[in-house]
Amino acid sequence: MERITAIYYIETPYDPEKAAAVLAGEQSSGTFVAVPGETEELKRRFSARVESVELVETVKEPAIPGATSKVGQYHRAIVKVSWSIENFGYNLPVLVSTLQGNLYEITQFTGLRLMDIDLPGSYGDHYKGPVFGIDGCRQLAKVQNRPLIGTIIKPSIGLSVEQTAAIVGTLAEAGIDFVKDDELLSTSANSNFNDRVNAVMDVINAHEGKTGKKVMYAFNISGEVDEMLQRYEKIVNRGGTCAMISINSVGLAAAKKVMDQRKLAIHAHRNGWGMLSRHPLLGIDFKAYQKIWRLAGADQLHVNGIQNKFWESDDSVVASIEACLAKMYDHKTVMPVISSGQWGGQAFETYRRTSTVDVLYMAGGGIMAHPMGPAAGVVALQQAWKAAVEGMTLEEAAKIYPEFGASVKKFG
Amino acid sequence: MERITAIYYIETPYDPEKAAAVLAGEQSSGTFVAVPGETEELKRRFSARVESVELVETVKEPAIPGATSKVGQYHRAIVKVSWSIENFGYNLPVLVSTLQGNLYEITQFTGLRLMDIDLPGSYGDHYKGPVFGIDGCRQLAKVQNRPLIGTIIKPSIGLSVEQTAAIVGTLAEAGIDFVKDDELLSTSANSNFNDRVNAVMDVINAHEGKTGKKVMYAFNISGEVDEMLQRYEKIVNRGGTCAMISINSVGLAAAKKVMDQRKLAIHAHRNGWGMLSRHPLLGIDFKAYQKIWRLAGADQLHVNGIQNKFWESDDSVVASIEACLAKMYDHKTVMPVISSGQWGGQAFETYRRTSTVDVLYMAGGGIMAHPMGPAAGVVALQQAWKAAVEGMTLEEAAKIYPEFGASVKKFG
Repeated sequence: MERITAIYYIETPYDPEKAAAVLAGEQSSGTFVAVPGETEELKRRFSARVESVELVETVKEPAIPGATSKVGQYHRAIVKVSWSIENFGYNLPVLVSTLQGNLYEITQFTGLRLMDIDLPGSYGDHYKGPVFGIDGCRQLAKVQNRPLIGTIIKPSIGLSVEQTAAIVGTLAEAGIDFVKDDELLSTSANSNFNDRVNAVMDVINAHEGKTGKKVMYAFNISGEVDEMLQRYEKIVNRGGTCAMISINSVGLAAAKKVMDQRKLAIHAHRNGWGMLSRHPLLGIDFKAYQKIWRLAGADQLHVNGIQNKFWESDDSVVASIEACLAKMYDHKTVMPVISSGQWGGQAFETYRRTSTVDVLYMAGGGIMAHPMGPAAGVVALQQAWKAAVEGMTLEEAAKIYPEFGASVKKFG
Repeated sequence: MERITAIYYIETPYDPEKAAAVLAGEQSSGTFVAVPGETEELKRRFSARVESVELVETVKEPAIPGATSKVGQYHRAIVKVSWSIENFGYNLPVLVSTLQGNLYEITQFTGLRLMDIDLPGSYGDHYKGPVFGIDGCRQLAKVQNRPLIGTIIKPSIGLSVEQTAAIVGTLAEAGIDFVKDDELLSTSANSNFNDRVNAVMDVINAHEGKTGKKVMYAFNISGEVDEMLQRYEKIVNRGGTCAMISINSVGLAAAKKVMDQRKLAIHAHRNGWGMLSRHPLLGIDFKAYQKIWRLAGADQLHVNGIQNKFWESDDSVVASIEACLAKMYDHKTVMPVISSGQWGGQAFETYRRTSTVDVLYMAGGGIMAHPMGPAAGVVALQQAWKAAVEGMTLEEAAKIYPEFGASVKKFG
């Protein structure tokens, strides 16, 4: 019978083997008091199994509150635990409750983080994964051999529908591939969702009629289930190609319901991610997180960016990009969305460390505030990536390409 | 125009006033580069506003990774920030993205926790809250003037449908008010959901026919949206009164879709809660969390228990019970679910500190492993609460009540 293995990074004042056994018991058939039905056959079939415990280090202070060590020793270890899929079958919320449920409550742990998940083969058949992924998004946006260049409408909130459509017009003329709503905007007092779709798609469809290129616009459909499905259909009916969901705020079951419609590319925004990941010994690592969202069907997934304006390290961002690009079954591959303080200057380091152009590269001010105008801003980003792929340095590229050179002067 | 105010506990190496301004900017109309549409009128209408900043203490080490202080000073403060409801209207996922979104990513903070939310009056009209709540659950279970006494089927996973139904029969005979599936079980290889509902409801309906009392059983419907709705209807059709959802794993939008059906009491299980709350300077406090889930419509919500087997302190549990019992609009009040290592001995301290019997009091081994049998286990819990309300001590109650006395000998 197939099993799912979870890899945890734990900290405990107890023997890590014993703490791991508590976890396995709590998250499967274990009980604190022996009960009649708990037979050997039941345990063999449904008990979680501790596969391995590997001590990493011992520290003197606990990472988070929990049991106290009398000798001031807290052991950190990598622990692998497995479950038969007979326990939950194909049910992502119950899988999450099993891998990420009450185990964070266990007092024996003074740190616990889900690092990775090893999924069984049959999950690749049951779950279809992204309907578009990297290849599909490239076809929709008509972009090959370079990153999709994208931007976010700013100010995040407060623009009227007409103002938003006018900015989209400017960006489309500038040659942008992708534009998105901010996650704070769905329907505001002066920007009704349906009105915004109408106004923006008028501009995008007109531009397509003229040039053959359809800008991909990620409308933020986040909301209640019926509302999201109505908004999704609104986008489909107006010829849009993409919908955005704040996956943590909307939640797994409703996001999957939307993804299951399989007509639009889904831009999965992970806002709130810091809450789930910022403490190194709590929450979930991106490597595990992205697997769940790929099973659910996300086509594009945020990974932050090199030299970002948030707290995340470059190493962590690189690991996230690599996680997205790793093959998963015969599914389409989710497209990493690079954003946060990007302007083109980071293309060099991003490419040097990841060797890929299969990303959606988002810049805000780097485009709209470019000294030669938004069109030059888009061109500058394309130049930066071309130069990075050709092995140039930022300084060499700045000399050769005037638009990129101007952005270096302003943002560098 | 109505505003929503969020109260955060923050830590920052910077001036807390400035850090709070960054938060307000990031989570509303602010941008890093000035953009043309950002007018004064727009800012006045849509900008988040820092209402107050109150310094609490200054510490030498940061709570979580982020910006580094050159002078080794990290300031902790209570910060209030407000938003006009014009920004998001009545959209809980976008509200969550606003209050709990990318702000956890902000490098200026080395700690950030959402402590409470002050909701506007119109939310009380737009959202209906729990359909049953405390009063409705009491009516469904026919229990007045004492806690509902409940238990969880154990082993958590692995019992056949027939074994589960047999245990429910024993518990019903014992006089139990409430029984629930474990959150790990929805459909397993040997316990299909629909089969379990049929078998358990046969037992419960037969017991009701005989005694007039219908045991409330919380079937775990957690899963995908359509699956949950089908399972919900299955329970309704078989005369059940309650469905359980793992709210963190299922997520807000899908859970609300289920709650909106308003035919069953919803038992909201918060497994995964430790991930969101265990670090004192990260995540969300229960006071804020329970407000969101009451708006969504949860009838029963887990709060852990006094002297529990998990990491949470008694003070925190008491605060959670009080948060649930606080009046919210003219809505029904959500019933706190007390569980984790409870056997009746904790009734005294629980009542002493909360002065309420409006709880669902869950015990596992305390009932099934009672030395005089499950019926004595249920009676012992009722005795413990009666004695607690009458001001007796545990020792006094143990002398007067033989069933409770026996449980003290075994579990005390």
